[in-house]
Amino acid sequence: MDTSCVDKAAISQMEGSGDIHHTICIDHEKSPLVKKASISEEVAKLLELKAKLGDEAPKKFVLKCPKGTRDYNPVQMAIREGVFNTIVGCFKRHGAETIDTPVFELKETLTGKYGEDSKLIYDLKDQGGELLSLRYDLTVPFARYLAMNKINTIKRYHIAKVYRRDNPSMTRGRFREFYQCDFDIAGQFDVMMPDAECVKIVAEILAQLDIGDFKIRINHRKLLDGMFAACGVPDDKFRTICSAVDKLDKTFWEDVRAEMVDEKGLAPEAADKIGHFVKFSGGQDVLDELLKDESLTSQKAAVEGLQELKVLLQYCELFKISDKVLFDLSLARGLDYYTGVIYEACLQGYAYTPAASGKEEESVSVGSVAGGGRYDNLVGMFDPKGKKVPCVGVSIGVERIFAIMEQRALANNVKIRTTETEVYVVSAQKHLVEHRLRLCQELWDANIKTEQSYKKNPRALDQFQYCETNGIPIAIIIGQSEIENNEVTMKNTQTRVERKVSRDSLVSEIRKELASLGQ
Amino acid sequence: MDTSCVDKAAISQMEGSGDIHHTICIDHEKSPLVKKASISEEVAKLLELKAKLGDEAPKKFVLKCPKGTRDYNPVQMAIREGVFNTIVGCFKRHGAETIDTPVFELKETLTGKYGEDSKLIYDLKDQGGELLSLRYDLTVPFARYLAMNKINTIKRYHIAKVYRRDNPSMTRGRFREFYQCDFDIAGQFDVMMPDAECVKIVAEILAQLDIGDFKIRINHRKLLDGMFAACGVPDDKFRTICSAVDKLDKTFWEDVRAEMVDEKGLAPEAADKIGHFVKFSGGQDVLDELLKDESLTSQKAAVEGLQELKVLLQYCELFKISDKVLFDLSLARGLDYYTGVIYEACLQGYAYTPAASGKEEESVSVGSVAGGGRYDNLVGMFDPKGKKVPCVGVSIGVERIFAIMEQRALANNVKIRTTETEVYVVSAQKHLVEHRLRLCQELWDANIKTEQSYKKNPRALDQFQYCETNGIPIAIIIGQSEIENNEVTMKNTQTRVERKVSRDSLVSEIRKELASLGQ
Repeated sequence: MDTSCVDKAAISQMEGSGDIHHTICIDHEKSPLVKKASISEEVAKLLELKAKLGDEAPKKFVLKCPKGTRDYNPVQMAIREGVFNTIVGCFKRHGAETIDTPVFELKETLTGKYGEDSKLIYDLKDQGGELLSLRYDLTVPFARYLAMNKINTIKRYHIAKVYRRDNPSMTRGRFREFYQCDFDIAGQFDVMMPDAECVKIVAEILAQLDIGDFKIRINHRKLLDGMFAACGVPDDKFRTICSAVDKLDKTFWEDVRAEMVDEKGLAPEAADKIGHFVKFSGGQDVLDELLKDESLTSQKAAVEGLQELKVLLQYCELFKISDKVLFDLSLARGLDYYTGVIYEACLQGYAYTPAASGKEEESVSVGSVAGGGRYDNLVGMFDPKGKKVPCVGVSIGVERIFAIMEQRALANNVKIRTTETEVYVVSAQKHLVEHRLRLCQELWDANIKTEQSYKKNPRALDQFQYCETNGIPIAIIIGQSEIENNEVTMKNTQTRVERKVSRDSLVSEIRKELASLGQ
Repeated sequence: MDTSCVDKAAISQMEGSGDIHHTICIDHEKSPLVKKASISEEVAKLLELKAKLGDEAPKKFVLKCPKGTRDYNPVQMAIREGVFNTIVGCFKRHGAETIDTPVFELKETLTGKYGEDSKLIYDLKDQGGELLSLRYDLTVPFARYLAMNKINTIKRYHIAKVYRRDNPSMTRGRFREFYQCDFDIAGQFDVMMPDAECVKIVAEILAQLDIGDFKIRINHRKLLDGMFAACGVPDDKFRTICSAVDKLDKTFWEDVRAEMVDEKGLAPEAADKIGHFVKFSGGQDVLDELLKDESLTSQKAAVEGLQELKVLLQYCELFKISDKVLFDLSLARGLDYYTGVIYEACLQGYAYTPAASGKEEESVSVGSVAGGGRYDNLVGMFDPKGKKVPCVGVSIGVERIFAIMEQRALANNVKIRTTETEVYVVSAQKHLVEHRLRLCQELWDANIKTEQSYKKNPRALDQFQYCETNGIPIAIIIGQSEIENNEVTMKNTQTRVERKVSRDSLVSEIRKELASLGQ
């Protein structure tokens, strides 16, 4: 490895556009003991070193995407387009409009909305002006939009990228920049009517994407709060204990219990009572069983939660998705802003065993692909008078879905077309570029998807090879004889059948041929 | 105005999540004379002030989008979707694939690519880890993508938001966050073949969008460089003088001349020679005239540029867009990375008179809606061995197009539907919610776009009102009698014609009705 190059890269990176000062500033922040003098010394050394290397040494770039992000190549984009079409199709089928918001918000718009996850927010550098942060989800910008425009009722979807400075795991589809596909219903309506539609939408999308069996677990924040109260959790610890419970899908109970007791100072007997409740999962029968538990029913919130969940399960039955829906008292969802029903969809058969646990027989599913819930207070946090707009919504986590689709295409050796080109214009001889250009103009202006070589005199073989590589169904061939006879040769690139077509009826003949090919 | 509130907001903003330290750090950067002691003093004062205000004072939010950005409401999104469909349709018609890249890049990826505009790049805060910047355009990320993946040939489009800390002007469609729609052809091809297709694409898109008459001005960086040399501009001033010429579409010649001479130290006689040349514009005849100018033809670069432009104009004629294309020696384009043909499309009839000039009869067009050119060296800047990949591309500036479409819809009083709902399920009496839910399930699962009220017992009037407001063509009405007869009432909401339909043939009857409505 050429270390001199690496050294130089490091130095030139520090020097470039005032970065030395910046770097010093940061060091200073992290370790206030570092003296300015020693920094100056170090900079002087680095500059000396750089001078020795000279300016003519080749510049070394780090050629990569930022940590936790990726490019999408054309094949991945084709898969992504297909997934988005399915999702948007479903959202439109349910009558949703769409909106868009900026990728960054005023920092204070995001402050105090995400609990322990706030540390994962990306901030922009203060370059004079407002303090900005990249959006962490699409829900808070939606709430800000409603409050700002005084909207009380809307059903909208929003598909856009969000940003989290999380520990990325590309193989498990966890990125720092990722898409969310959100559908939300805002407005004062009757119990569980919009909530049930959100659950239905998740079921429709996952079924239509056909990526394997799934289950939608549901729970209720009021039930969780009532349960915490029944277990003796102090009020001010509800949210932090809820965050701990949220980890149950990735962590074993004993680790979650340790977090509650050792880190968060919960009484061990309270933790054990929680451990008892979080085992409950099932259908209406389990809800009925819990409605008989006196420690729970002494909590008004728990009863309300249980009763709403009963209505939700009933509506799910009418929507014919009961077999996909499962009440689960261990579902907590990390975000602070939920106030009612919460849900999360997991793909079955995507299991993960924590490496360090040593208990290989136990495994925890990490196949979460959608989640959401009710948040009735979030819009009120933005309204100057605190006016609330009840909301419920769902977010589809498409990155994992993309990953599964990609793996499947690879495994099944499916060739995915990345263009839609219908016709390739081939010149059989040299010096026909002007004829080709005229032909392309005619086809483009007739809205036929057409390509040609960007070489003036391309080889015939190269042109037919291009058709084959890119799956272009029709080649239109011109040569001197065709030009003299005012015709072209139309070739089906699959069957290799050729026929002469009059130049004047070219467009209509291509349309016929495409129709017969089912394009 | 409640100033105590404002004070408190300012203080709590400073206190939040370590921002006090941040603010000090920035002040320190800007003005090293500020002493640490005085800062501590000030902070203490502010904290004292805050304590006096108490915690119970109402929190004051600034409810807005960041400066220079905006939300898109559903009507704007419907317009945007239409424009994107036209643009993507054209890109696909020309055989392009699509890619996507992260919204931010390593800071060093953007460094040294944008000349004087680099100061407009948004940086992310250093939160530990890599130094990142928001993308400034889609071209540099594209070049980084090609180099990183060792791609020599590709035709791709990319539609995404880019970020510039420019002085925003919402009324003139200039934002800090805005969409670009880029089409680029990378690869070693024959002269002007891909270049001409880019110009053709601009002409197709602007014609199809039907937003008024337009002209595509073309020029050539080699011709400009040759012209600068012929005028006696020193080599090292080419780019900065080019930046000055670039302002000619927004500024008068005397101001540009002043910038060249007074700010940039160009000899006045050189500036005057430039002033002579930038008046040339027209077709092949003007190119031929310049090819006779001996001061120009003594410059190899100028001759190359002129000859390539002649080929380009010839190809444009074959593509039948000659009436839209105009050679213009005053076109410069701001960005550093162009090396060959450059072009810019302007809408006619969108004129702007600089306010301070006092010369109202002269006006300068600011209707630029597309631009691009050839950049043969950019990919090589990212390749470890400097391997070049010639590229040419075009970027459609859609924000202005959106603005024009919005104004037109408003002026023509066009009602734009923001949903695609086909059927609204209406209950004529109370206590029919379960029947409605079952009906919706059936229609959704048959892929019919269906809505219903989220109230258990909505008023009939409200339901029909919803259909009318949202332009929903069919109402399916159920009442007790319909349920007893195993049928529904299907109502055309436009004609108000109703008919009974058997419950069992509901889906096929709806499909027939929609087909007859041309949906």
